[in-house]
Amino acid sequence: MALKGNALFAQSGGPTAVINSSISGAIQEAGKHKEITNMYGSINGILGVLNENMIDLNKESKKNIELLRFTPSSALGSSRHKLKTEEDFNKLLNVLKAHEIRYFFVAGGNDSMDTANKVHKLAIAEKYELRVMGLPKTVDNDLPVTDHCPGYGSVSRWLALAVRDAGLDTEAIYTSDTIKIIETMGRNAGWITASTALARQKENDAPHLILLPEIPFNQDKFITEVEKVYKKLGYAVITCCEGLKDESGEYLTASKRNIDTDKFGHKQLGGVGETLVSIIADKLKLKARCDKPGTIQRVSGIAQSTTDREEAYISGAMAVKHAVLGKNGYMVTLVRESDAPYKCGTGISELDNIANKERKVPEDFINANGTWVTEKFLKYITPLIGEPLPEYARLEKKLIGKKLSK
Amino acid sequence: MALKGNALFAQSGGPTAVINSSISGAIQEAGKHKEITNMYGSINGILGVLNENMIDLNKESKKNIELLRFTPSSALGSSRHKLKTEEDFNKLLNVLKAHEIRYFFVAGGNDSMDTANKVHKLAIAEKYELRVMGLPKTVDNDLPVTDHCPGYGSVSRWLALAVRDAGLDTEAIYTSDTIKIIETMGRNAGWITASTALARQKENDAPHLILLPEIPFNQDKFITEVEKVYKKLGYAVITCCEGLKDESGEYLTASKRNIDTDKFGHKQLGGVGETLVSIIADKLKLKARCDKPGTIQRVSGIAQSTTDREEAYISGAMAVKHAVLGKNGYMVTLVRESDAPYKCGTGISELDNIANKERKVPEDFINANGTWVTEKFLKYITPLIGEPLPEYARLEKKLIGKKLSK
Repeated sequence: MALKGNALFAQSGGPTAVINSSISGAIQEAGKHKEITNMYGSINGILGVLNENMIDLNKESKKNIELLRFTPSSALGSSRHKLKTEEDFNKLLNVLKAHEIRYFFVAGGNDSMDTANKVHKLAIAEKYELRVMGLPKTVDNDLPVTDHCPGYGSVSRWLALAVRDAGLDTEAIYTSDTIKIIETMGRNAGWITASTALARQKENDAPHLILLPEIPFNQDKFITEVEKVYKKLGYAVITCCEGLKDESGEYLTASKRNIDTDKFGHKQLGGVGETLVSIIADKLKLKARCDKPGTIQRVSGIAQSTTDREEAYISGAMAVKHAVLGKNGYMVTLVRESDAPYKCGTGISELDNIANKERKVPEDFINANGTWVTEKFLKYITPLIGEPLPEYARLEKKLIGKKLSK
Repeated sequence: MALKGNALFAQSGGPTAVINSSISGAIQEAGKHKEITNMYGSINGILGVLNENMIDLNKESKKNIELLRFTPSSALGSSRHKLKTEEDFNKLLNVLKAHEIRYFFVAGGNDSMDTANKVHKLAIAEKYELRVMGLPKTVDNDLPVTDHCPGYGSVSRWLALAVRDAGLDTEAIYTSDTIKIIETMGRNAGWITASTALARQKENDAPHLILLPEIPFNQDKFITEVEKVYKKLGYAVITCCEGLKDESGEYLTASKRNIDTDKFGHKQLGGVGETLVSIIADKLKLKARCDKPGTIQRVSGIAQSTTDREEAYISGAMAVKHAVLGKNGYMVTLVRESDAPYKCGTGISELDNIANKERKVPEDFINANGTWVTEKFLKYITPLIGEPLPEYARLEKKLIGKKLSK
């Protein structure tokens, strides 16, 4: 059962606020096991293996590895490189063999788990003893099996804070800037956009409409809903997913750029928010503006959720524990035990169950009107963002009465 | 000299992270002076006076007024309404008279100080004893006389944090997302964009180019500069001002929206970042993406600079002190005494010196190449953002060497 050799750690896909916490947890755990001889880090995900571009993690200071836990983005570098040719796979296996790597830890999302799975299967086919473990990671929160994904709690906290603030901004200056659109990330699943519901703390707070890609966009309905909020409050704040699609399944705004697909063939999204601004100007003659925080939302160090950070760390450590005990070809999962008090443990699931699969926001998390979330969703997400949002003043605003006639 | 009556507080222009701190300081100070009878808040700036829409601040809890100090956006509501007609001005003065308002405190920027100044002059002309004081406020940092403006330190802190994180994001995933553009606010002055320089903590850190509206945009030069960074690092992070202009003085991208000017006749800006993305795709065939945090940057509660917050609070309190002592028609200014250790006091300057004037980033704050800031600017801005940015891990990345031949 005991397998002695070197361990290789890789980070893959879009960076997050806590993917370094996962790697920090994995490295610190690996340091405790005599089965693991040297610890290497692959520079830029799978590309680092292909190019033999790997660093010696034993030469990093203990302080640096501990500080990784609190450092956003992917410290080892990442990539979206997709292994395609047999040549690539063989090169990869040869590199692992040459460096006596017996443990391969990959932190990533659906695509990355697919890559990890293929390496795992190739090693078996080639009878090279290699233990491959996945560390869950994605702000998109779209991995199946796991209750949620490390990275999601932090992007949600960031958006809860940002949308609350930007909502107060519109509430204050609505006589000039009347409608605000905030475009969030999320390719095909609306998890990130849904999290903006956490910004609302009392009735009429922003966001007033939440547009998820799970609900096909209908322009007439959109205009009706915006008008309803506008008539009630005099303004409206709308959050929308970059991956919004119309009823024919087309992205609301496909990018017009020269280079518009990434290496996985995904369309480079963007521009949905500005499209909505135009629709509102055109149909309602109201001034709207769009905030599109982009990558800032997914890697914010300042809004790390402490819960998310700790879960990321633990999932990294657990991946190593399982591998040393003999597990191979699995991803660590988060298993929720209770909502209140929030308790969450870990499990494992075969990479076959995860690779290339996408979990969308389920129907019972979206309200009947398709423009907000349900209580069930709020119960699901609230513990993931860690501490409650800081308290703000809300004035009573008791009017003094008029003394002049019109 | 002693003038007894009611005080009216108003917030004007774009909300900031600390404009409530200014009002909190002013209200708490006013509560100490027996000359001030009742304290009213004007709802939505000058509109609240025009419409007799004012609240009783004495009925707000002490806790709420204290909490205001830490609450972003404009709690009283704001507006960009420009008083134009004689009828408006007369209505306004009649409201002040009817409610026995003798102290009028306006927190705002250039436009707001112009409004305050006009009210001040009208009251003198009409022989109505009224003390008008301006509280400086603007993320744009473009008010003259004052060393800097409350609000600027916080937006700068927010951007320093965000650009550092987003820069690490690009550094990690550059093999897929190679160029990042971050579009900041700033109408005609580049103060906000310049503040992104604080994100850089060591050589080669983002941002690599800073595009200020003070330097006319030249496409060929831009492409050359981006290419230079790209060849050196393999990626580039560029911050640009929404108010960027070309060499003929035209905004790089004037909005194509139906409603494209605000009530002051300013063009509604935006789209500069996406324009640069297109240029890069077209000329360099590189994939770029644009983050445009928009209003989120200016009202973030989480990134309030403690220095900024305290200066905002003190400038509010000082406005009240000066008014009670007889000053009229002034704005409180911040007067820097030393850089290290940072010391800053307050002064006052006549509204005539401030109203409608715009201070741009001076030449000696911009490097010779026009693509970065100078040490002098860094010395100027560093104390304004409060505590140093949190420490992050930076791996040594010692390569283990290759074992396979090509």
